[in-house]
Amino acid sequence: MNLTILGCYAATPRTFTNPTSQVLEIRNRLFLIDCGEGTQVQLRKNKIKFSKINHIFISHLHGDHFYGLIGLISTFTLLGRTTDINIYGPVGIKEIIMLQMKLTDSWINYKLHFTELSSKSSELVYEDDKVSVSTIPLKHRIYTNGFLFREKLDKRKLNVAAVKKFDIESCFFQNIKNGKDITLDDGSVIKNEQLTHDPIAPQSYAFCSDTAYSEEIVPIIANVDVLYHESTFLQSEELLAKKTKHSTAVEAATIALKANVKQLILGHYSTRYENISVFKEEAETIFDKVQLADDGKTFEFSSK
Amino acid sequence: MNLTILGCYAATPRTFTNPTSQVLEIRNRLFLIDCGEGTQVQLRKNKIKFSKINHIFISHLHGDHFYGLIGLISTFTLLGRTTDINIYGPVGIKEIIMLQMKLTDSWINYKLHFTELSSKSSELVYEDDKVSVSTIPLKHRIYTNGFLFREKLDKRKLNVAAVKKFDIESCFFQNIKNGKDITLDDGSVIKNEQLTHDPIAPQSYAFCSDTAYSEEIVPIIANVDVLYHESTFLQSEELLAKKTKHSTAVEAATIALKANVKQLILGHYSTRYENISVFKEEAETIFDKVQLADDGKTFEFSSK
Repeated sequence: MNLTILGCYAATPRTFTNPTSQVLEIRNRLFLIDCGEGTQVQLRKNKIKFSKINHIFISHLHGDHFYGLIGLISTFTLLGRTTDINIYGPVGIKEIIMLQMKLTDSWINYKLHFTELSSKSSELVYEDDKVSVSTIPLKHRIYTNGFLFREKLDKRKLNVAAVKKFDIESCFFQNIKNGKDITLDDGSVIKNEQLTHDPIAPQSYAFCSDTAYSEEIVPIIANVDVLYHESTFLQSEELLAKKTKHSTAVEAATIALKANVKQLILGHYSTRYENISVFKEEAETIFDKVQLADDGKTFEFSSK
Repeated sequence: MNLTILGCYAATPRTFTNPTSQVLEIRNRLFLIDCGEGTQVQLRKNKIKFSKINHIFISHLHGDHFYGLIGLISTFTLLGRTTDINIYGPVGIKEIIMLQMKLTDSWINYKLHFTELSSKSSELVYEDDKVSVSTIPLKHRIYTNGFLFREKLDKRKLNVAAVKKFDIESCFFQNIKNGKDITLDDGSVIKNEQLTHDPIAPQSYAFCSDTAYSEEIVPIIANVDVLYHESTFLQSEELLAKKTKHSTAVEAATIALKANVKQLILGHYSTRYENISVFKEEAETIFDKVQLADDGKTFEFSSK
């Protein structure tokens, strides 16, 4: 699993900073999370293939999280796309996109499937054989969801040396990967653990932006490998954070601690701060595994 | 009068090229023409004050000409704007902007005045004491207008040396600027031409993008100082230009010649071409005063 930050600054796009958008890659699938203005240019700069994006998750309908979506859809069309796109976001997102498609007289050779969200409880919104995605209801000025991505437990890996040693024919390999023991011709039973390696531990990633401090999300994101939590403000702007329903770095770290996550990534910095390293310093007073998102940065999540 | 090109490439924004947007400055007034995705970042890069923009003209509702508008409006709000904004564009633009304002739950401290256009004839859409703006109906796949900006003839300039020489009191200066002759105490008449300089010749600028070759615009833009005419394609793609209702560089130059304009600026290049200098070469086979628009380039229109 790896995460590329296309943009992680609050409010307006500027010359060197971009509004929220990130690409999560899980077992060769790409998930685009939020899509602020300029996302398509950031995709190009980070050399991410447009054609590999089939699922787009929008947290909420503030401009810095979705104004780039209609442009991206238009570019998919210009690039000759024929594969369907799935868009998950708050009720209203379909109306916004379809109105613009109608008025710009756009025709497309692929389907747009909208999953419009309105539930105030966590719900499963996407699932395939490798990954599931659920919402994380957040507390912001308008209806907002984070998203929780969970890899599924893979099949066990064949121990090639072991199957050679016991001279097991390849027609049994699928059974072995599925966890079955093997009975040899002489009647002896070889335990599955002798013939396989453990699968790679499935990983999990929780994206939480934008939100006020909310302990209600703790049980939903408990024990995840990586938590991206917004930290729009520093502690000195604690009251402003409350007023605007955003979080401080210390609040993000407190959530990480309470949820027992393995790693915290901070982002969604207010553009008032010139130096983002202070966010890390403040968060580390509470929680010790803190990293800073920044535009163009990629995080590799290695499983141990 | 001067023109800053924020973006002048067709279709999608890319790492180093931007979709259509330009700022025309006339006697200290700024007019924003079209507003593709990323325009607000281009305004920053070109150090143009957001607060000086009060009038925005949108040629048509293709994404590369207006997808940056909603983001710019949001940024005006974040910057604490209180001055009204006037937006001129095709019917539908108000619905698009207002729907997004509603769903993003945006409040603004200034008014948005929309002038929605639907006429197929040229019409006056803006006028003050210095400038008038009329539409130039274009031929494109959807309803599209260019815009013709005309400076008004300024008052005559006081010849300071002359009024000193004739010892004329300052209370007469306004009359002199308005073109009146002056009768001295001894009854002699001083002709206005002796007391004034000619005003600076008013200039005119015609923006024509996007459009198929259309001679119908020739009488509207006849004799303008500067014509910006789209040239999406080179002559080798003449048929594609016809099909998509765009122009070639040669067609743009032919319009410039027939309209007897003083200067032609080409732009709206298809991103298929790596080297835009060929546009100039092809246009110069027809018309000799050709310049190439490019992102970040400023043109000063000097009057003689």
